[in-house]
Amino acid sequence: MDLKSRILSLLRTSEEYVSGQELCDGFGVSRTAVWKAVNLLKEEGYEIEAVKNKGYKLMSYPDSIAKSEIASRLHTKWMGKELHYLDETGSTNNDVKRLAEEGSIPGTIVVADCQSSGKGRRGRAWQSPPGTSISFSILLKPDIAPDNAPMITLLMAMAVADAIRKTCGLEAQIKWPNDVVVNGKKVCGILTEMSLESDYIHYVVVGTGINVNQESIPEELKETATSLSIEKGRKIVRADVLEHTIAAFEEYYETFMKTADLSMLADEYNEILVSRDKEVKVLDPKGEFSGISRGINKKGELLVELKDHSVRNIYAGEVSVRGLYGYV
Amino acid sequence: MDLKSRILSLLRTSEEYVSGQELCDGFGVSRTAVWKAVNLLKEEGYEIEAVKNKGYKLMSYPDSIAKSEIASRLHTKWMGKELHYLDETGSTNNDVKRLAEEGSIPGTIVVADCQSSGKGRRGRAWQSPPGTSISFSILLKPDIAPDNAPMITLLMAMAVADAIRKTCGLEAQIKWPNDVVVNGKKVCGILTEMSLESDYIHYVVVGTGINVNQESIPEELKETATSLSIEKGRKIVRADVLEHTIAAFEEYYETFMKTADLSMLADEYNEILVSRDKEVKVLDPKGEFSGISRGINKKGELLVELKDHSVRNIYAGEVSVRGLYGYV
Repeated sequence: MDLKSRILSLLRTSEEYVSGQELCDGFGVSRTAVWKAVNLLKEEGYEIEAVKNKGYKLMSYPDSIAKSEIASRLHTKWMGKELHYLDETGSTNNDVKRLAEEGSIPGTIVVADCQSSGKGRRGRAWQSPPGTSISFSILLKPDIAPDNAPMITLLMAMAVADAIRKTCGLEAQIKWPNDVVVNGKKVCGILTEMSLESDYIHYVVVGTGINVNQESIPEELKETATSLSIEKGRKIVRADVLEHTIAAFEEYYETFMKTADLSMLADEYNEILVSRDKEVKVLDPKGEFSGISRGINKKGELLVELKDHSVRNIYAGEVSVRGLYGYV
Repeated sequence: MDLKSRILSLLRTSEEYVSGQELCDGFGVSRTAVWKAVNLLKEEGYEIEAVKNKGYKLMSYPDSIAKSEIASRLHTKWMGKELHYLDETGSTNNDVKRLAEEGSIPGTIVVADCQSSGKGRRGRAWQSPPGTSISFSILLKPDIAPDNAPMITLLMAMAVADAIRKTCGLEAQIKWPNDVVVNGKKVCGILTEMSLESDYIHYVVVGTGINVNQESIPEELKETATSLSIEKGRKIVRADVLEHTIAAFEEYYETFMKTADLSMLADEYNEILVSRDKEVKVLDPKGEFSGISRGINKKGELLVELKDHSVRNIYAGEVSVRGLYGYV
């Protein structure tokens, strides 16, 4: 963590003024270094009061997801230890892919305030307007069979839902396989990409976009999408959501890696599955059918119970599942 | 095809002198343009005689795999229409990946005379010394399930074996899944890499390295590797091998894409399979066993018949197969 992040971390958790001397001693740096770092933070929008003989105090902070803000909050074991921030980029997934090819370590994260060409699944566009959304991608190098890697997307959906519940108090749920929804509308998109040899994963990139402080949603998406601030009725601190998402994802990922499947996580996933025990329509290219969603199994497949009580395992790649009544 | 390649193509197939006028008329360009192109070819090592009132004649050509040489030879439908050549590069697979991210068309090929950090499977190094080997990578965007993509590697092995038989008259065979061997020693390595979403292929890169004119093989590889010129006892024209490999691969690939499996190709593959009907030892991490190799099925799995006449399907990713007597 750089000096800026360390000072920020300390100021955020102090209710009293922190003396310059304390900062110098604590971090083993000069007064000038502290003064410079504080000035850089001020330039980034942090309101830091400096009072003679008392020290520094953080009065207010911007809704930033820049490097100092996130690094000062992260208490993960290994995720985000290499952290990059960009005001604007094409696509954070592409940035992480480039870093992966250059040899970056697992857990490397690229965060952007805004993406000019954010990617959704199958080449669809994903909107990430500046100042209101969160876009970030994580580099992973799991030593598992390529077939098991798509489950990682489900872990991120769980992590985002978890972070939304904790930071906003909203009832976030999951539309299988990996859409996070609040009040039936989508707030988060996840795109997992992989680079592999036949049987061997080079790396996995998990890209996540979260609608946080958008005040309105484009007309054509209004029916199915929303933002956290719209649902909560107030602005949300983006760094809060991002911090908790990364922390939760690290935990889910480590649990997943113990078995390379969801055997220890499927129950928790199913608790927040929107379609659970509801009727769903399965849009299989080989033929449409309806049944009752019984949640996922340890491979992440959705179990759909038909009228004759037989159960069909639905693999995410092949089909689309719709709720019969509303967006589940 | 550029003018240089078109002139080269015409001169190569003409036993007589070709007049400058004929070239101008044929390609709709000026005498100066022809003269410039001929000079460029001379600089690349082509010996072109120019005789007044008779025209141009190709007397000899270098052992080149540069763009003009390959483009002037290719009569494929779509493979190699975008063609790049580099005297030296890190890895042609990495070059094609970069081109893929930038939107290059399927069939795009990067050829290099030499790779400074050629890649084998699982990060192993692959030697591609200048002037003697062929290194090239092809970009593909097959609309098939990711599970089926590893079979593309087997198609390239068939194409290389086919080209070696046609151009050198050597009995090239395949060591399952995708090593091409001559007289029991490896002459070709293939590394297939993919970029995907969970269920959707962005692109596949098939990289191939062929040992052609190496006069000697490093001591530590001598037991298992060789070059075409060592086996044939004379120099081989590299462009000949590359031309036929690309042509054969286009055909095999199109056949494969009709069914997205090897149902129309497995018989041909099995005809040149070294281990066919021989005893093999299967080094499965779950336990070693021996049996008789009965060739591949339409999924590219090796069928091994055990002593009790039951048959086990061996999937390439999991195991390694060794011949009991020599390198099969």
